[in-house]
Amino acid sequence: MSDTKWVYGFDEVADAQAAVGGDWDEVRGLLGGKGANLGEMTRLGVPVPPGFTITTEACLAYLDAGEQFPGDSWAQAEAALARVEEATGKTFGDKDNPLLVSCRSGAKFSMPGMMDTVLNIGLNDDVAEGMIALTGDARFVYDSYRRLIQMFGSVVLGLDDEPFEEVLTGARKAAGVASDSELPPEALLGVIAEFKQLAPAFPSDPREQLKLAAEAVFRSWNGKRAIDYRNAAGIAHDLGTAVNIQTMVFGNMGDTSATGVAMSRNATTGENKVEGDFLVNAQGEDVVAGTRPTLHVEDMAEIMPDSYAEFIDIAGRLEQHYHEMQDMEFTIERGTLWLLQTRDGKRTAQAAVRIAVDQAEEGLIDRKTAVSRVSPDQVDFFLHPQFSAESKAAAGKLAEGLNVSPGAAVGQVAFTADLAESWAKDEGRKVIMVRPETKPDDVHGMLAAEGILTSKGGRTSHAALVARQFGKPAVVGVAEMEIDLKAHTMSVGGATVSEGDWISIDGTTGEVFTGQLETLVPDISDPWLMKLLSWADEFRTLGVWANADYPVDAERARRYGAEGIGLARTEHMFFETERLPLVQKMITTEDPAARQEALDGLLPYQRGDFAGLFRAMDGLPVIIRLIDPPLHEFLPEHGQLLRDIAAAQVSLAAGEGDASGLEAKIAADTAMLERVEALHEANPMLGTRGVRLGIMIPELTRMQVRAIFEAACEAAKDGVDVHPEVMIPLTSHVNELKRQRSVLEAEAKAVMEEQGIEVDYKFGTMIEIPRAALTADEVAEYAQFFSFGTNDLTQTTYGISRDDAESGFLMAYLEQGILTENPFATIDRNGIGKLMGIAVEGGRSTRPDLEIGICGEHGGDPKSIALCHELGLNYVSCSPFRVPIARLAAAQAALRSA
Amino acid sequence: MSDTKWVYGFDEVADAQAAVGGDWDEVRGLLGGKGANLGEMTRLGVPVPPGFTITTEACLAYLDAGEQFPGDSWAQAEAALARVEEATGKTFGDKDNPLLVSCRSGAKFSMPGMMDTVLNIGLNDDVAEGMIALTGDARFVYDSYRRLIQMFGSVVLGLDDEPFEEVLTGARKAAGVASDSELPPEALLGVIAEFKQLAPAFPSDPREQLKLAAEAVFRSWNGKRAIDYRNAAGIAHDLGTAVNIQTMVFGNMGDTSATGVAMSRNATTGENKVEGDFLVNAQGEDVVAGTRPTLHVEDMAEIMPDSYAEFIDIAGRLEQHYHEMQDMEFTIERGTLWLLQTRDGKRTAQAAVRIAVDQAEEGLIDRKTAVSRVSPDQVDFFLHPQFSAESKAAAGKLAEGLNVSPGAAVGQVAFTADLAESWAKDEGRKVIMVRPETKPDDVHGMLAAEGILTSKGGRTSHAALVARQFGKPAVVGVAEMEIDLKAHTMSVGGATVSEGDWISIDGTTGEVFTGQLETLVPDISDPWLMKLLSWADEFRTLGVWANADYPVDAERARRYGAEGIGLARTEHMFFETERLPLVQKMITTEDPAARQEALDGLLPYQRGDFAGLFRAMDGLPVIIRLIDPPLHEFLPEHGQLLRDIAAAQVSLAAGEGDASGLEAKIAADTAMLERVEALHEANPMLGTRGVRLGIMIPELTRMQVRAIFEAACEAAKDGVDVHPEVMIPLTSHVNELKRQRSVLEAEAKAVMEEQGIEVDYKFGTMIEIPRAALTADEVAEYAQFFSFGTNDLTQTTYGISRDDAESGFLMAYLEQGILTENPFATIDRNGIGKLMGIAVEGGRSTRPDLEIGICGEHGGDPKSIALCHELGLNYVSCSPFRVPIARLAAAQAALRSA
Repeated sequence: MSDTKWVYGFDEVADAQAAVGGDWDEVRGLLGGKGANLGEMTRLGVPVPPGFTITTEACLAYLDAGEQFPGDSWAQAEAALARVEEATGKTFGDKDNPLLVSCRSGAKFSMPGMMDTVLNIGLNDDVAEGMIALTGDARFVYDSYRRLIQMFGSVVLGLDDEPFEEVLTGARKAAGVASDSELPPEALLGVIAEFKQLAPAFPSDPREQLKLAAEAVFRSWNGKRAIDYRNAAGIAHDLGTAVNIQTMVFGNMGDTSATGVAMSRNATTGENKVEGDFLVNAQGEDVVAGTRPTLHVEDMAEIMPDSYAEFIDIAGRLEQHYHEMQDMEFTIERGTLWLLQTRDGKRTAQAAVRIAVDQAEEGLIDRKTAVSRVSPDQVDFFLHPQFSAESKAAAGKLAEGLNVSPGAAVGQVAFTADLAESWAKDEGRKVIMVRPETKPDDVHGMLAAEGILTSKGGRTSHAALVARQFGKPAVVGVAEMEIDLKAHTMSVGGATVSEGDWISIDGTTGEVFTGQLETLVPDISDPWLMKLLSWADEFRTLGVWANADYPVDAERARRYGAEGIGLARTEHMFFETERLPLVQKMITTEDPAARQEALDGLLPYQRGDFAGLFRAMDGLPVIIRLIDPPLHEFLPEHGQLLRDIAAAQVSLAAGEGDASGLEAKIAADTAMLERVEALHEANPMLGTRGVRLGIMIPELTRMQVRAIFEAACEAAKDGVDVHPEVMIPLTSHVNELKRQRSVLEAEAKAVMEEQGIEVDYKFGTMIEIPRAALTADEVAEYAQFFSFGTNDLTQTTYGISRDDAESGFLMAYLEQGILTENPFATIDRNGIGKLMGIAVEGGRSTRPDLEIGICGEHGGDPKSIALCHELGLNYVSCSPFRVPIARLAAAQAALRSA
Repeated sequence: MSDTKWVYGFDEVADAQAAVGGDWDEVRGLLGGKGANLGEMTRLGVPVPPGFTITTEACLAYLDAGEQFPGDSWAQAEAALARVEEATGKTFGDKDNPLLVSCRSGAKFSMPGMMDTVLNIGLNDDVAEGMIALTGDARFVYDSYRRLIQMFGSVVLGLDDEPFEEVLTGARKAAGVASDSELPPEALLGVIAEFKQLAPAFPSDPREQLKLAAEAVFRSWNGKRAIDYRNAAGIAHDLGTAVNIQTMVFGNMGDTSATGVAMSRNATTGENKVEGDFLVNAQGEDVVAGTRPTLHVEDMAEIMPDSYAEFIDIAGRLEQHYHEMQDMEFTIERGTLWLLQTRDGKRTAQAAVRIAVDQAEEGLIDRKTAVSRVSPDQVDFFLHPQFSAESKAAAGKLAEGLNVSPGAAVGQVAFTADLAESWAKDEGRKVIMVRPETKPDDVHGMLAAEGILTSKGGRTSHAALVARQFGKPAVVGVAEMEIDLKAHTMSVGGATVSEGDWISIDGTTGEVFTGQLETLVPDISDPWLMKLLSWADEFRTLGVWANADYPVDAERARRYGAEGIGLARTEHMFFETERLPLVQKMITTEDPAARQEALDGLLPYQRGDFAGLFRAMDGLPVIIRLIDPPLHEFLPEHGQLLRDIAAAQVSLAAGEGDASGLEAKIAADTAMLERVEALHEANPMLGTRGVRLGIMIPELTRMQVRAIFEAACEAAKDGVDVHPEVMIPLTSHVNELKRQRSVLEAEAKAVMEEQGIEVDYKFGTMIEIPRAALTADEVAEYAQFFSFGTNDLTQTTYGISRDDAESGFLMAYLEQGILTENPFATIDRNGIGKLMGIAVEGGRSTRPDLEIGICGEHGGDPKSIALCHELGLNYVSCSPFRVPIARLAAAQAALRSA
């Protein structure tokens, strides 16, 4: 123990690095992030006020030993202090030439929840008088002194800050001034006297001040706030914090002094130009507080040209050294520049992209690093309009829900899909469609609206899925919002919003505002982003395809970089106005001829849809999924039919209205009710859908396959390079696939023969039922491709009905920490991920060249994309709007695993 | 090729055995089952009419070569025929001393779909005249002749049989007789002439007859019927069939001739005494046809004492040789006994058990063989009353449905649970409860009824589950049956059954009859069965536990041999009349105090239920599952509430009834409707149930755990050896279990502290969600036992809602052969079985002594039990009525894998 080095001067960072074996991350672990960077700057010859760091190991030993400094650690600190005295030529506690120091905590990871700073340590009555003699600035010295007592009282002694502030308020009142900085020296002397009474334990001995402050920092590691923060942020509890003791420098010592903060590049635009604020004759907190208008750091060039030149040089050197844009604090004390901190700078999404690309082109970093530095969420920013921060701050927030589809939308509230559509189409109004929840027959309204807001539903509710699919901003599950569809109003808390009122919703954050907020529209064609994504494409091995039902979506997906369509749903098309009656007839008739007639009516529509997709994706694969949902989804809702019948019966009984009309309505509704009840399923998610429908009603899927191949042949004849892939959903047993494929492939061949042209095609299946994954070796006998439907696979593997759960227990689980991630947002690695691994292995054992992808909602989620890369999938397929994100995430996954 | 032996005389079976390397199964493969047994009897010195077998290899080579006898095979057959001539002293085709032969197919496995027999080969006009001279019996000879032509025409020439039968009908009419055997010789001569015209290709050359017949047998292997049969029965297509050519013997050559069939033991009771029928001066088919009253084989002792003694001796020797009860055909031709066939005899369940036990005690077989010889289905027979075959034959079958709970029940139809209960309890009537489907509040009626019949639902519908649980015969899903609850009638096809009419249902077969059928009640205390099961217990390694909710069931289970309770459901108890209002209050109140009050009211009931279980299972483990179903199951049905409200509104509108009463009803129903709608889930199977309920409403499961431990402590104080195991259902993530277990185990400890007594207990979980199985290593950290809930595990892993599917696509899948087994009846080995294996391996990797069982419906299914044995489970738990079956199945699984 006696050999342990517990304290490192800022000039000893090389020793610290040697002690931990060279790894910079371990230096940060030993000295904390702040201490390590102060040492590194010192090593680089950057002017840093001298000081030293007491290590995190000392902290842990101190706490372990029942709050006792271990071994000779405090003696080492005193020796380090002596070296600082030597370096500065000042002496701690010496009234004639006093050294003042700050004491700051500094853990490996930044922890806002921890005790931070005590400044001006070393002042007492005597030293203060000596400093006044030295500086001639009594106000400055007394103000520094009262700040020491106040911070020490609060941070070290744990006193309530309020009584101190009351003293200050009283003094300002008495002096008739508005701010503390205007208080005259004599008034501050009175404040100091009163502060000493509030903090009788404040020691006048500078060395005791310092030791107690260091101990307070160590103890703060186990404070409640710090522990809570670490729990929340997932930081280990056994790291400890370092203490940094550093010579005080003052930017408020006249017109040759100044203080400021600056970034080495523009944090908003990413432009390669130092950017920041500074103030002459001021302290750091004045810059932050904004009590005086700050100057732009460029203005230093005129005011303090030498310091400016030095600072620009240092900023450049630091960026070169860290290979990253730096966020720096500096102080100029009587013409001498000091750097007090440097760290990697925060930036907007736009700046992040530009800086990464610029730095790579400058040769500062390589392209792999550039690709790794931008987060997929930052790419998302480019794809959706955003509210400006100012307009958000100015607006009144109405409520908050789930942020299920990003982007900002402003519009007038419409409570029905029809109204939303007619306002938008006929009157050109901007509309936000507001519903308790949405259903397939609301889609026309959703398409017409700027954004969607619902009070029910979860992350994968119908509203959320459709919104993401079409890139519409959406906030769902705003439970506190009560919608009165009859009164055409909604209310949250006290506020009431009527149909036609303006609201603004932020699908990126889940916020809902009243009124019209200002929006900013970033640009997907940003040249830096385009370059970054092209680099990402070089590194990724995972393909990126898109889910698109309509040609316009497919075109967008292709523009965004999609290399195929991984999922075209065929049933959305069934809900369109001209088609739904045919679909309902097909379902409700018992007569095979009538059913066939309805199917024949649908065929041309489907063929047209598919032909458009093939043309848009000329040369690329298009996976078309055969009908998936249970048939009752296309029929009226059971409870609504019962209510309609009851209403008509009541009118009849009361003798109101046209009796024969009512009776006819009752008869028609009752007939429909019977059919709805016949098709009723206790658990439709596990019911007659997907391939099960195809087996029970083969003429339906046969019609779809005919439409696909007629469209493909037609396009091929026009010279389009078509690659249809027919996807059979919900397979659970290989025999289902075997049976359906033989029926459907025969139809495909018949069409190609009729058309006199052959097209390249595949038959494959969704893997969305656990059994299909478990028996993938068998399933692959009859599937040329697999596509994981991870939404359904999550539902069945987890035994969770997503809509029920996301407005119920699943949200409670996430709040209570039973689950840390929503499995419908990010693939559950241990459960669903394991099952996917079994499926990949099984499928490829039978068919080594099996094409495997994913087309669930997770296809656009970066963590899930990383898992897909690890599992060796061929591609992910996601909403067109997430294609650029997926390209980047796939590249990052490849780089991480390389 | 020229060395190949294609033909084996019956006296050359030893050569055949040597040729295949000694294995008897391969002898059967080469010679077919019939040929092998004829050879074996010959080897044993049993008198068998001489003959020979053309091998299956010859058949395959014949078919391979484009229907040409391979090599010298036909020459070998002719040589074998010469040896038969030598042995019999008769000559084939010689009119003075003719040899007649039969030609029969004989594959390795019995195949009813194949061509079978041509008799009397060797007859033509000349030979017939010679035989008449020899026997003096023209009628016999002509009849034999016409049979040859008819069989040859049908079997060899492929002619339609109908014209032949028309000739016979005409002849009977002309002769004025009722049966063919009464036709005089001259009439038969006319028939022969007409038959020859119908079959002009019939050859008069005996050798050609023989060769063509043998070829027809060979060709029949590839006939459509045979291929279909093999596909259905899972028999390989590359086995081929043998041909057996055997000397004809005749039991109808006067009073010293006879023919018969007999078993070496009584096939009905199992008594060790030869049993069978015979007729003097008759042919085999006369015995079977029943045209003359047969004699008991014992009567032979008086009529033909020598033949009888010889036959009894042979029967004994064959049984000794085959170690199995034999089913024999014999013919006595002019005092000489011939055996024509022997094979293992079919028997009733009762006989199977007794014979196996007797044979083991006689030392004929060992106990392992005895245990292996009785099928679990045969044990099932002892547990349920059965209809006598006679009464079934006499009765009119009304319909057929799913045989979901075995046994026979007779009663008067009652269409409501209340009526069923009042008729049974108050009037002592026997009742069959008939409903479209049953619900939990029908249970009192089901308990009171003799049996249950429903028109809807599947193998695991509520009706089926409850019926099996309580051993009530049940037939469900009789789709063709229309129930008119208003008219109190049901109709099937044309028949209508009214309330109060007698019906009989056979839950073993799924049949429904009108009227009162006679029932036979077998006896579980059958001493042979008891002995067999005790032997089974010696061999099995898998424990057999029972699912029981009530003490009376637990007692029965213990009587039947259960070694623990693997599943006591706690929620059934919530449906009882006094309790349901408390349960509904608990669910519908928003006030925590009112909820706690309701729970406090339920506690004593639950405690009482559990105490009874612990007492009944003194010394054995009792696994109690905490509440599992979603809460809305305890509330009124949504559609019904809507209908009730509508009816009241209509009455109000029409001015009928008491307005304020109606308004109050509407208000109350509307309030309940709101709560029902709030609890509504799109897919309740995947919704808020099981542990999810326990986490959302911890006071509910805490009450249950308190009741369990209060009951356990109370019983322990009375000296009962209690082993409660608390089972948490529906775990999908280890954290759910961790959270619930910590809350509940704390409650358990608190109760034991209050009671001042410690009891041995475990906490564990159901494995019924795929994710729990996939992450079993994690789950086992907090589970002391696993119990596979294979019903739910099948639903989620297969993505099939059982009730929906069993009345829908799943039945179609089974009919169409897409699935060969209902996964809700037998565990799907490739899918669910694989997942169970992952769970067993994962769980035991974390906790090597993890107790693992199964408590789904599959626990009583022999194939599933075998899988559980292979997977290394500790026990299966099943309905008390299936415990004996499970004991046997578990032993057989152990013996098979040993």
